[in-house]
Amino acid sequence: MGDAEARIHAAEAETLSAHRSDPDAEPTTPRVATLGFVPTMGALHDGHATLIERAREQNDVVAVSIFVNPLQFGPGEDYDKYPRQPDEDLALLREYGVDIVFIPELEVMYPGGEPLVRVSSGRLGTMFEGAARPGHFDGVLTVVNKLFNVVVAAAGPHRGRAYFGQKDAQQVALVQRMVADFAIPLVVCPVAIVRDDDGLAMSSRNSYLDPEERKAALVLSRTLALLREEGLSRGYAGIDVDAARERISDRDGVDLEYLEIVDPKTFEAPVENSERATALAAIRVGGTRLIDNMDVI
Amino acid sequence: MGDAEARIHAAEAETLSAHRSDPDAEPTTPRVATLGFVPTMGALHDGHATLIERAREQNDVVAVSIFVNPLQFGPGEDYDKYPRQPDEDLALLREYGVDIVFIPELEVMYPGGEPLVRVSSGRLGTMFEGAARPGHFDGVLTVVNKLFNVVVAAAGPHRGRAYFGQKDAQQVALVQRMVADFAIPLVVCPVAIVRDDDGLAMSSRNSYLDPEERKAALVLSRTLALLREEGLSRGYAGIDVDAARERISDRDGVDLEYLEIVDPKTFEAPVENSERATALAAIRVGGTRLIDNMDVI
Repeated sequence: MGDAEARIHAAEAETLSAHRSDPDAEPTTPRVATLGFVPTMGALHDGHATLIERAREQNDVVAVSIFVNPLQFGPGEDYDKYPRQPDEDLALLREYGVDIVFIPELEVMYPGGEPLVRVSSGRLGTMFEGAARPGHFDGVLTVVNKLFNVVVAAAGPHRGRAYFGQKDAQQVALVQRMVADFAIPLVVCPVAIVRDDDGLAMSSRNSYLDPEERKAALVLSRTLALLREEGLSRGYAGIDVDAARERISDRDGVDLEYLEIVDPKTFEAPVENSERATALAAIRVGGTRLIDNMDVI
Repeated sequence: MGDAEARIHAAEAETLSAHRSDPDAEPTTPRVATLGFVPTMGALHDGHATLIERAREQNDVVAVSIFVNPLQFGPGEDYDKYPRQPDEDLALLREYGVDIVFIPELEVMYPGGEPLVRVSSGRLGTMFEGAARPGHFDGVLTVVNKLFNVVVAAAGPHRGRAYFGQKDAQQVALVQRMVADFAIPLVVCPVAIVRDDDGLAMSSRNSYLDPEERKAALVLSRTLALLREEGLSRGYAGIDVDAARERISDRDGVDLEYLEIVDPKTFEAPVENSERATALAAIRVGGTRLIDNMDVI
């Protein structure tokens, strides 16, 4: 904490002195210290490392939060068994050169119990992951908004950047929507999915998979990669989504929840002026739910 | 705007120079410029003047917003006929010595239409005024949160105070709740109700009343004053709420919507450790809905 503050102050002092050294110089926009923020639920993996690296490249100070947020877990979901390894996480964060780590107890984030006033994610929060997990995105946005107010606001308005992995594409879309709708004075930076060598998108929940399940799960990323190839070579109309759905459903031990191609801003079917089209899917392998996505045009 | 910025910078410069003049001095908490913010829907009256005066006393810079927020009006409510008088308002604000005035067009506050992501006011938002006006408090909190992010955040965290009139007691409770639940880094300052000489609580909606209606409306504040007297002299148990309800209902031209005594933090019946108990009521006089409240212990 002391180091990080010193770094902010040093950056500001530099700005001030650069500004004052030559009173006749043209006024320039002062360079102020920026804060890069990576909110996580811990159980850090190389996907998180990539987010932190990006934050490090683009900012003077890097903050990471670790908080397994009960609001975003439904009844019967894996809140209790979600992997928690604070000691390993802290060692990694030290290694990554992170300046500020925020690991609040439940009572610090939600004193007096769960919050009464919350963020409501609207229609986009009821689709796909929101349909499978009612209330999930309200819980995500409620905690992310609060973390922004606690961690990023301290850097000052328009001095913060927040980093989110593109694996949770709907979360990225909703956080961007919230930042716009609430006029939160920071920038959301999505970061591309990081994959293991076999193609599986990195996720803390991959630790739930036994070797057989992990092998079965690969049908997800491989099918998305085929769709991407189809889209890039034959165009949007040449994509055979039904065949892809069958391919996943036919895999032993895998249940397909959904596979759709959407505009990743609206999560509706892409329209003529959509900038991107993304194939996104959720499967169940044993007791584990996995999601993944890839742009197809 | 230029003046206000200059004032913030001057205050900060003072702080810095005071800090640097004697390197051996004991470190003190630097005095930084603070911002007092009064969000309004315009049609300013002496109640607003009191909020602004308080903001002026307690802060270096005062900002006022004027925005008639459609999100907080239900279908069939008075959004279209709500009094709008920007020229008179601006003249008053100049007179009051306000530094920053924010009068956004609808398209500035809600570009692309109404926001998808909103603030949800929870159970407290469905009681009393929320029961009579479904969605009202979600709309209030959504715009207040956004105004905080636009206007107050610019001053920096923990440098802002926001002023709200106690007439809208439930609004005050919900904004305080939101600021706590969201960890918004500013302080909410409730300001006591301002009344006309006849006792009527000031409200922009009083302009809807004709002279007969205005006379009839006085039963509201007079009845609340009686309850307060009963409470102060005989204690909570000595308050006859039913008689008070009858007194209002018996007045020609007045319909009672509700009259209850509540803990103004929870809006539930006061309990042993409640700090305050407040009588709050809503009536209809002709086409106009009026609310008022008074502490009774």
